[in-house]
Amino acid sequence: MEGYRSFLFFLVSSLLFGFLGVIFVLVWVLYWREGLAWNGGAAEFNLHPLLVITGFVFIEGIAIIVYRLPWTWKCSKLLMKCIHAGLHLVAIVLVIVAMVAVFEYHNSFKIPNMFSLHSWVGLTVVILFFLQLVMSIFVFLLPIASDSLRAALMPIHGYMGLLLYGSIIATCLMGITEKLIFTLKEPPYSKLPPEAIFVNTLGLLIVVFGGLVIWIATRPAWKRPPNYDVKAPLPNGGNPTDTADNTTVTDHKPDLELNSDAARKRNLQLDEAGERSTM
Amino acid sequence: MEGYRSFLFFLVSSLLFGFLGVIFVLVWVLYWREGLAWNGGAAEFNLHPLLVITGFVFIEGIAIIVYRLPWTWKCSKLLMKCIHAGLHLVAIVLVIVAMVAVFEYHNSFKIPNMFSLHSWVGLTVVILFFLQLVMSIFVFLLPIASDSLRAALMPIHGYMGLLLYGSIIATCLMGITEKLIFTLKEPPYSKLPPEAIFVNTLGLLIVVFGGLVIWIATRPAWKRPPNYDVKAPLPNGGNPTDTADNTTVTDHKPDLELNSDAARKRNLQLDEAGERSTM
Repeated sequence: MEGYRSFLFFLVSSLLFGFLGVIFVLVWVLYWREGLAWNGGAAEFNLHPLLVITGFVFIEGIAIIVYRLPWTWKCSKLLMKCIHAGLHLVAIVLVIVAMVAVFEYHNSFKIPNMFSLHSWVGLTVVILFFLQLVMSIFVFLLPIASDSLRAALMPIHGYMGLLLYGSIIATCLMGITEKLIFTLKEPPYSKLPPEAIFVNTLGLLIVVFGGLVIWIATRPAWKRPPNYDVKAPLPNGGNPTDTADNTTVTDHKPDLELNSDAARKRNLQLDEAGERSTM
Repeated sequence: MEGYRSFLFFLVSSLLFGFLGVIFVLVWVLYWREGLAWNGGAAEFNLHPLLVITGFVFIEGIAIIVYRLPWTWKCSKLLMKCIHAGLHLVAIVLVIVAMVAVFEYHNSFKIPNMFSLHSWVGLTVVILFFLQLVMSIFVFLLPIASDSLRAALMPIHGYMGLLLYGSIIATCLMGITEKLIFTLKEPPYSKLPPEAIFVNTLGLLIVVFGGLVIWIATRPAWKRPPNYDVKAPLPNGGNPTDTADNTTVTDHKPDLELNSDAARKRNLQLDEAGERSTM
């Protein structure tokens, strides 16, 4: 991998900020707030920030960059697609539980649902995320869609993934803002009590983590090389062409095109059109 | 330009959403709020959302995609750099005035400054934006830096530009959330009065505009072609090599490399490394 040390630096930094974000939200709800429970009360509400930041920020961030980990390049593309899709699935399941928790809490206390910009953007993001996940399973994971359809949809898939991720971060920041204004009363948010400093810092951690994930995901030099799993020796000692069942945009006819001039030109063309994306 | 009709569709859509955003914030402060004035009161505060959305969202959005407009490709790269930098400058001047307005308003009413996550992220973004602008003027605009330094910094320049732009949008959404919670009292924000619906919609308009700008900016096929101004006939009928004073990453030795195999390979390499960016 080109720039391996730099990649490691950014990966370790992102994991550090991501872990810190999860720890901060845990400390927030356990130490500063009412803890965690499924009882319709404030402790159930607290599952909302915890599950959203764990699922939709941290796990989703890992899902976005999982193809970039060079240690996974020896794994088949199909396996990596399953891991990529599986992480997205875990993320959205956690977020759906997080949404149920906040709706139940609101209903218990007769607080209206869906009035804030946080909820409008958040629900839109969850719906689009779900549609993107279903579309991507049918187009990129299952062996149904043609190569040309995959190539046409890949730029939209990658762009939507990062746009939704940025919107998730923005939604978290709005949620933090709302929660601090509504709950900090004596002293209020404007007096910047220790909890406010702590949770503002959580917001900054999320922004830095998101920025690092997007940096890693958008470096062309750190993309999983096309046909890497075909070129690499297989753990079972089998023939590289055994991996022909992998369904990727770029592994079309690997036995014919691999290392050929035609394959090189094709990959460069895909690069130019932004269509060789493993995200 | 490849995909010209699609480009036009996205450009017109983005301009539509951008204009609507500016109109919505104007209607908000003039119809729903206290209007505009420089008097230390609520009308001075209102300059804050108006100038931020006009400068840091709309004008900054145009600054980001200005190189993509194919009608500008006949202009020299140096002229386009000046327009790009000039629009950033207009944006940051408007935002500095917007910040002064909100500080003066807070001080008039003894409201603490810099307590909210909105203010923390916002001030960080303004400082980083300013540093990016100064760095870019020295590295990319003035004829000081070497080609290798420019090539090394270009990916960071493009990434930081879009990351900061995304952070600006997120900061606006937090600002809208704060303002609606603090000002809507009878009926409160949670009852979703017409003003809340209107301003939530403003938030969505900003998100869509930002998404369209980022889509346009990140399509490889819509980038300004390297050396376009060298290849294009000059308005004054001069020799194409007259433009050699343009200081760009990719117009190094244009008379030698233009249309040559070496130039083609070099551009492809820069593409692969993400270093041919006109943003």
